[in-house]
Amino acid sequence: MIEKGLKIAIIGGGSSYTPEIIEGFINRYAELPVKELWLVDIEAGKDKLEIVGNLAKRMVKKAGVDCTINLTLDRRSALKDADFVTTQFRVGLLDARIRDEKIPLRYGCMGQETTGAGGFAKALRTIPVILDICRDMEELCPDAWLVNFTNPSGIITEAVLKHTKIKCVGLCNVPILMQKMVAEMMEAEETDIFVHFVGLNHLVWGRKVYCKGEDVTEKVVDLLVHDIQSGVKNIPENEWVAEQIKDLNMLPCPYHRYFYLTDEMLKEEIEAAKTVGTRGEVVKKVEEELFAIYANQDLDVKPKQLEERGGQYYSDAACTLIHAIYNDKRIVMPVNVRNNGAIADLPENVVVETSALITKHGVLPLNTGRVETKIRGLMQVVKAYEELTIEAAVTGDYGVALQALTMNPLVTSAGIAKKILDDILLENKEYLPQFQ
Amino acid sequence: MIEKGLKIAIIGGGSSYTPEIIEGFINRYAELPVKELWLVDIEAGKDKLEIVGNLAKRMVKKAGVDCTINLTLDRRSALKDADFVTTQFRVGLLDARIRDEKIPLRYGCMGQETTGAGGFAKALRTIPVILDICRDMEELCPDAWLVNFTNPSGIITEAVLKHTKIKCVGLCNVPILMQKMVAEMMEAEETDIFVHFVGLNHLVWGRKVYCKGEDVTEKVVDLLVHDIQSGVKNIPENEWVAEQIKDLNMLPCPYHRYFYLTDEMLKEEIEAAKTVGTRGEVVKKVEEELFAIYANQDLDVKPKQLEERGGQYYSDAACTLIHAIYNDKRIVMPVNVRNNGAIADLPENVVVETSALITKHGVLPLNTGRVETKIRGLMQVVKAYEELTIEAAVTGDYGVALQALTMNPLVTSAGIAKKILDDILLENKEYLPQFQ
Amino acid sequence: MIEKGLKIAIIGGGSSYTPEIIEGFINRYAELPVKELWLVDIEAGKDKLEIVGNLAKRMVKKAGVDCTINLTLDRRSALKDADFVTTQFRVGLLDARIRDEKIPLRYGCMGQETTGAGGFAKALRTIPVILDICRDMEELCPDAWLVNFTNPSGIITEAVLKHTKIKCVGLCNVPILMQKMVAEMMEAEETDIFVHFVGLNHLVWGRKVYCKGEDVTEKVVDLLVHDIQSGVKNIPENEWVAEQIKDLNMLPCPYHRYFYLTDEMLKEEIEAAKTVGTRGEVVKKVEEELFAIYANQDLDVKPKQLEERGGQYYSDAACTLIHAIYNDKRIVMPVNVRNNGAIADLPENVVVETSALITKHGVLPLNTGRVETKIRGLMQVVKAYEELTIEAAVTGDYGVALQALTMNPLVTSAGIAKKILDDILLENKEYLPQFQ
Amino acid sequence: MIEKGLKIAIIGGGSSYTPEIIEGFINRYAELPVKELWLVDIEAGKDKLEIVGNLAKRMVKKAGVDCTINLTLDRRSALKDADFVTTQFRVGLLDARIRDEKIPLRYGCMGQETTGAGGFAKALRTIPVILDICRDMEELCPDAWLVNFTNPSGIITEAVLKHTKIKCVGLCNVPILMQKMVAEMMEAEETDIFVHFVGLNHLVWGRKVYCKGEDVTEKVVDLLVHDIQSGVKNIPENEWVAEQIKDLNMLPCPYHRYFYLTDEMLKEEIEAAKTVGTRGEVVKKVEEELFAIYANQDLDVKPKQLEERGGQYYSDAACTLIHAIYNDKRIVMPVNVRNNGAIADLPENVVVETSALITKHGVLPLNTGRVETKIRGLMQVVKAYEELTIEAAVTGDYGVALQALTMNPLVTSAGIAKKILDDILLENKEYLPQFQ
Repeated sequence: MIEKGLKIAIIGGGSSYTPEIIEGFINRYAELPVKELWLVDIEAGKDKLEIVGNLAKRMVKKAGVDCTINLTLDRRSALKDADFVTTQFRVGLLDARIRDEKIPLRYGCMGQETTGAGGFAKALRTIPVILDICRDMEELCPDAWLVNFTNPSGIITEAVLKHTKIKCVGLCNVPILMQKMVAEMMEAEETDIFVHFVGLNHLVWGRKVYCKGEDVTEKVVDLLVHDIQSGVKNIPENEWVAEQIKDLNMLPCPYHRYFYLTDEMLKEEIEAAKTVGTRGEVVKKVEEELFAIYANQDLDVKPKQLEERGGQYYSDAACTLIHAIYNDKRIVMPVNVRNNGAIADLPENVVVETSALITKHGVLPLNTGRVETKIRGLMQVVKAYEELTIEAAVTGDYGVALQALTMNPLVTSAGIAKKILDDILLENKEYLPQFQ
Repeated sequence: MIEKGLKIAIIGGGSSYTPEIIEGFINRYAELPVKELWLVDIEAGKDKLEIVGNLAKRMVKKAGVDCTINLTLDRRSALKDADFVTTQFRVGLLDARIRDEKIPLRYGCMGQETTGAGGFAKALRTIPVILDICRDMEELCPDAWLVNFTNPSGIITEAVLKHTKIKCVGLCNVPILMQKMVAEMMEAEETDIFVHFVGLNHLVWGRKVYCKGEDVTEKVVDLLVHDIQSGVKNIPENEWVAEQIKDLNMLPCPYHRYFYLTDEMLKEEIEAAKTVGTRGEVVKKVEEELFAIYANQDLDVKPKQLEERGGQYYSDAACTLIHAIYNDKRIVMPVNVRNNGAIADLPENVVVETSALITKHGVLPLNTGRVETKIRGLMQVVKAYEELTIEAAVTGDYGVALQALTMNPLVTSAGIAKKILDDILLENKEYLPQFQ
Repeated sequence: MIEKGLKIAIIGGGSSYTPEIIEGFINRYAELPVKELWLVDIEAGKDKLEIVGNLAKRMVKKAGVDCTINLTLDRRSALKDADFVTTQFRVGLLDARIRDEKIPLRYGCMGQETTGAGGFAKALRTIPVILDICRDMEELCPDAWLVNFTNPSGIITEAVLKHTKIKCVGLCNVPILMQKMVAEMMEAEETDIFVHFVGLNHLVWGRKVYCKGEDVTEKVVDLLVHDIQSGVKNIPENEWVAEQIKDLNMLPCPYHRYFYLTDEMLKEEIEAAKTVGTRGEVVKKVEEELFAIYANQDLDVKPKQLEERGGQYYSDAACTLIHAIYNDKRIVMPVNVRNNGAIADLPENVVVETSALITKHGVLPLNTGRVETKIRGLMQVVKAYEELTIEAAVTGDYGVALQALTMNPLVTSAGIAKKILDDILLENKEYLPQFQ
Repeated sequence: MIEKGLKIAIIGGGSSYTPEIIEGFINRYAELPVKELWLVDIEAGKDKLEIVGNLAKRMVKKAGVDCTINLTLDRRSALKDADFVTTQFRVGLLDARIRDEKIPLRYGCMGQETTGAGGFAKALRTIPVILDICRDMEELCPDAWLVNFTNPSGIITEAVLKHTKIKCVGLCNVPILMQKMVAEMMEAEETDIFVHFVGLNHLVWGRKVYCKGEDVTEKVVDLLVHDIQSGVKNIPENEWVAEQIKDLNMLPCPYHRYFYLTDEMLKEEIEAAKTVGTRGEVVKKVEEELFAIYANQDLDVKPKQLEERGGQYYSDAACTLIHAIYNDKRIVMPVNVRNNGAIADLPENVVVETSALITKHGVLPLNTGRVETKIRGLMQVVKAYEELTIEAAVTGDYGVALQALTMNPLVTSAGIAKKILDDILLENKEYLPQFQ
């Protein structure tokens, strides 16, 4: 591999996040010689692909690294003999996300991109596409690693691991940001921090937090409930209920607000939808501004404005992961990986988000064993929802889809689940062939 | 045992249900020679104890069986050398129940006697009392069986099995009624029906239903969604969502409505509270009427009006169980019993409601193994809530209590959980010494 | 079913055990109306089939029951629309058994029909045949129950449950005899005894023994070590090591002698082989004598001499089981059944021998949970051997077969395993097409 | 910690291995500033302690590092405020080992220092002493790490973790040597090799072997069966059975010979005992020669002859481990650690030998999940033996001790187990107060 250099394919290459991943590869070039980078997108994303692809070319040129940027709408040529494939596509684009947010709100339920009924709709649209990509990979690059950060990342990764032969790791910036937040709180280097992550994507707990080998969980939790910093741009900063978080004595992730503060989050979201718009509507404007900046022919580095987009460090985490795999670094990272008994309270064949050792031969979760009752129940009910969602997305079975939504803690009854499901199926018809 | 006859102590003997259990013992006297029946109550229940106790004496006399009815406020003399102890007491009486129903409603959450925040409050009050009874039993009748039907029956049974050495079985009339309903639907004898029950108390599924050895689950489910009969008096008859129940392909219990139809049930409850009163308020009136009937010196049989009280067959199930244990009948009954791995998706040391073989040497659950994803998540999250509730009730730890309520699917956020918890602690102060 | 009566097919109908099963059906005729009984055998067993078949006809005639006895070499006509199928065949007949006994002895290892390397050879020969029978059943009588008592019964049942869709229960007379022995020891009725069996076929422990609800395990173990009665004809009566069995505080099965008293049993076997012959050689003579008796045209009942054959109650247990299934009796019997988590220390998909509820819709194991360390290890290593044996028998993989024998506690090294295996493959060549 | 430097106590400091650990600390001094090294021994080992202790002083002086060597018979002063404690003592000295080897041989069973009945006897003698040390540690240095390499290392570590509060890691040079062997076979650097170890101490498999990320398990196994190198001095080099090891497709450890080649090993051992003496007798002579060398006042480095002693790299592994803990290196090492579900086929509370991440806050096993049937059974039966051995050693219960030996695959029957046990108890009387 070393001699020929690496070939990497980025599905959804026209994404606004692409400059970050380009920067990541440039910075690691000495140890991670990416010689070919293929940005793939679909017809509808052609313009954005051009804009961001040209920026990528300028960035690479400025950095002076030997790396060819290929822009293409032909996924198969991008996948052919790739060493790594990353995914950051959005089926139905931001308009679909906005619908995902608005449908549940109609019925008094949280409408969010990755959790609740919104994340469910996104999963239904995305899973057929990712499985299609994997079938191409099985043919064209069967040994390549798929680094997925398409949301809902845990669900998508589980669908891939259950239904294809592709080696897949799911990534999320949420635990990465939690680690950074802890380092800041403890005024320490990130390498001095060790957060043992346990849970699911967007429902992950920092079960134990260490700084230089010392257990600082209680200290960090204290800081958290006194000085609120969600650290994630996409989530309104509602205050935790201090007594509950202190009893928890773990680090919740920002998305826990949807479950621990359902009522309050819902009120805020309803209010936002009436005034500034849903998060998807806000992001749409931000994206337009970003692409205007990207289109500037003088720009040849990642612009600072990207950091305000939310989702920062996502691409950087992907670069770190690819680098660790390629160089057999055996470092510990929070990733989405097959459980296989690592968390004893969840089935073996599901995907969990947990601290894992990254090696060249695979991603090996650290063993957790049984978790505390206080996090177990929520983790289990959400996982059951996720498994049902994958089954519904793969089979197109209406009953299973309804069961999945009914199980979701953010959907308040089977009756309402049915109404939301019917709207989702109707308004996403073109993206849900499995339900025809 | 046979020669001396059996001694049975009924804690909460002044309950309106007592005539049913008396009738049960009378009917089984030939094979279950109860020679001494001790009805125990507390000072506040003295009058009711007198009324129902005297009715019991008249019933026994009329039946012509050799059985002494003892009325006492001294629990220890009742427990001394007892063979079986049953419990049907209500700490704080119906007024406490009414508060349990009203507090959650203040904050837009379901207020119900046994599930949700209402059942939580009831558990906090009841657990210290039942553990106290068991400590007496460990001293005065260590080999006696405790047949618990004090609600929340599963939680109470688990508290006893985790914290005492007493042999305890938890009973509920809900699965009994489900069996009767199936027999009626199938126009078959009850003995022809075999329902394999799996789940938790008030969250039990008839996972498979057989009639004369034939799997009739689908047929029964079809009848259920077309011709709604909840069969339980305490629960409003909201219609199931047919598509969800059909996909489930199991028999839900009536209490599943609180989880599957949360929104609809909540609306009805709010409406009822405004008009006819909460269920507790209704029951209070019914009880007053019942005791007026019981007080009639001419009455010497169980009056028909008792059947309208709700909870019918509870006491009859207790008699069947005691009879089966005493005579080593080795029949199958749905009971609350230590899981011990019978349901692989739940911890070993928790109590589950499942079909079990009743023998003289113990209650042996049939093995279930893993359950379907579509029921697993809900079962697991409710069990986690139950475990936390028991821990909170035993330790009096505020944080754990808050965590328990937050985990409960019928409580909508940690913020609301805190408000409800504070009200519960304040308004039940005299019954919650562990939280002082 | 009732109107048309039952059709039962007995594979290996020419067996010397057949008169017992005929007697069993005759005795139960009122509740188990067997109208057609098909005795099937192969060409090589034709003479015996005639002899025993004609005895069966005389027995039925004498009893005056309406049941046709059909003798056939055409298995498929026997299986067509059968309600129950039982198996008691021996691939390679007694000569193969004698080889199974002698080959291991050559290398200083126990040679026994059902355990050790002998049982392994028998499994290799039998599994392809039983799977073939099941494929016929899938076509000709897919709803029939297969009641297997071909040895090694647990292994054969597991092969069927893993590789076919047929409903199969494995039976063994060993636990039945243990129950009878306990009844005798306690001078009680068999119905007063409850032995909770846990383990594997021919490695089953009476983990708890009750008499009229009282735990008499310790008492029975005491009697056992003082007054040795193996109760099984095929096993020499070596004395248990009292201190070990008392610490065990469970009822070992007679076959435990091969594992607990390996050395002593081996010495005896070597001695016997030199003098009276191996057990197979002894049985061969007994069988010849039995068939001489059976051939007597005046005989029209089961002759007493059959009881000396060993394996008594086998067929009676089969009749009891079939009767319990057919009439949905819901009694508890020790059977070989899919584990499914009933014994938590063994895999879910293996077969265990344990107490189970016999119903018309299936055989439901009682839950056991985790077992004591003192029986766990031996049970686990023997089960691993059994799983490997099945895999070897199905795939014909030499390496797996060698691994299976190496894992067997009665085979003393991989080197010796290889020698034994090579001899087995060579001397059973005609019966082991899968290894060609 | 850094400022004051580290204090390390070595229990059994008079061991012949001590020069290696001294060398290890000297080589790592820059990152592992050991300021105080306490060599502790008992009265009977005083002379050896003087000899090896003075060598240690000369070594430290020559190396010019700031480290005080303290020689003492007062364990408590050595433990006071220690940061790390290592153990390498031998209760009863080499004479006890020689007895451990000879007693089983009397009855035709393998007599070996760490496995079989010999290892059992060693465990009985050692566990009371190690628990006593831990009780001192709980008082004098409760936060110190105990790095155990006293054999049987897995059993001793499990005894400590089950019965004390001390943080303990068990070490063994066997997997370390396996890694080195693989590196040599692959002509690669040790850091390029990743062996995923799974199993128990002295029964550990290299389940998967990678070189630079590539799975080379099959290649290594091929080399192993063709070119036999046991790599461990204490074990005669019997040839593996190629077909079995190839089917295994894992790297067996040298001690697997006792289980896979029992017969052959036993013959060799019997022969050796008659001629050159048991391994213990050989080692006794080697030790005498070593101490003669150590006594040379001109020697101030670790002498080469130590490497021939067997057990090389043991102390070096300890230094690597202590270094990794102290500096939070987060490297992967094979260690003995609480299972906690890492290997799903073994109980949670037992100790396993597996690849683990070494951090400053603890030793975290990588998750394994379920293992292959072909290694599962043996691993499980040996673990059950180990658990029973610990229970026997702690309680002094004769029945449990007998059960443990009966379970051991290298002991051929309960009858022989009893004879061996009686001899062990008699000949080790002074070291086994728990059995009085």
